[in-house]
Amino acid sequence: MTPVLTAFAASPDRGRGLARDMRVRWACEEVGLAYDTRLVSFADLKEPAHRALNPFGQIPTWEEDGLALFESGAIVLHVAESRSGLLPAEPTARARAKAWIFAAIDTVEPPIVDLSIAGIVERDKPWHGLRLPMLEERVRTRLAELGDWLGGHDWLEGEFTAGDLMMVAVLRRAPPALLAEQPIVADYVARGEARPAFQRAFAAQRALFETAPEGR
Amino acid sequence: MTPVLTAFAASPDRGRGLARDMRVRWACEEVGLAYDTRLVSFADLKEPAHRALNPFGQIPTWEEDGLALFESGAIVLHVAESRSGLLPAEPTARARAKAWIFAAIDTVEPPIVDLSIAGIVERDKPWHGLRLPMLEERVRTRLAELGDWLGGHDWLEGEFTAGDLMMVAVLRRAPPALLAEQPIVADYVARGEARPAFQRAFAAQRALFETAPEGR
Repeated sequence: MTPVLTAFAASPDRGRGLARDMRVRWACEEVGLAYDTRLVSFADLKEPAHRALNPFGQIPTWEEDGLALFESGAIVLHVAESRSGLLPAEPTARARAKAWIFAAIDTVEPPIVDLSIAGIVERDKPWHGLRLPMLEERVRTRLAELGDWLGGHDWLEGEFTAGDLMMVAVLRRAPPALLAEQPIVADYVARGEARPAFQRAFAAQRALFETAPEGR
Repeated sequence: MTPVLTAFAASPDRGRGLARDMRVRWACEEVGLAYDTRLVSFADLKEPAHRALNPFGQIPTWEEDGLALFESGAIVLHVAESRSGLLPAEPTARARAKAWIFAAIDTVEPPIVDLSIAGIVERDKPWHGLRLPMLEERVRTRLAELGDWLGGHDWLEGEFTAGDLMMVAVLRRAPPALLAEQPIVADYVARGEARPAFQRAFAAQRALFETAPEGR
């Protein structure tokens, strides 16, 4: 059975590959795993059928041979663990790569998402402009720390791993102006985006956007 | 070599077991793994020695036989994967348990942390009271969704797993008044806290608070 990934029928990112299905697509391309896509609307997310797959009504979900998974981090980890190419075999390096998956999701992504959500939900509130410097500073701090770690290295830990995949995917959601302040991090993101597997995954989600009438 | 866990010398939670070392302590107690604790100050977090262990200057970190890890999710996953007791052996159930670790960290914890941080950092801002209902509603939504999933079950997926451990640890940071609105979830947290392993971990971090002069 070909695994089935859910994605937005009309992603609010309008084909920029910022929705969380992109991470899974990219992981699949890195390890050479074919998958099918099932598109869901925002209304679908509230339906019991989708809640059975993801109790919190989000995408992506993953169905494969009797296994139903949710959470992009869990799906990427599953894809990486069950095929070769995204996690080193040596136990110490393997554990380090997994730690970076968590660092991306748990430490770097939250301030980026907070800034993004505030820009959508609170844009017209009188306090938004006053809070913005604080929100941006939180993102800056994480980008600077990441830049310090990367230094002159191509990837977080020697070879490219699922940890880099998740980190680059998360960083792509940061405002370009903030990324540009940290050239080391901006170059790191560009290095990830230049990978053929990223390009194939990006094209797949982009094609969807270009053909779906709701996505235009 | 006994693994070494870092924790705050003076945790801002004053011994309530809300700092992220608690999750690792609990995991160690569940699988019967002895560990040593190394206490760090907030100033230590900025030092190169600590940044080498955690590039983002956070606790906990974990050192074990040449492996250095950071991110509480990664450490709990490592402890769970390398010993028995926190992850089912059957592959499908094992992947599901890991998905709940990510759900706890990536979906349930962010709105809880946002609410908590706003209450500390923005408490005196004129907009704090105006934003509070929105922040609380985001927590309420996740608690309600979790309650719907749990229904009449003791744990997220049959037996207690590392996913429950992480979820309960995260939920303990939610305001008690919001938890109380969802009796199913409040009972779930109480069930986790009643486990002997939780009790031992809680006592260990509590003892530290009671003996450390900075902790008083």
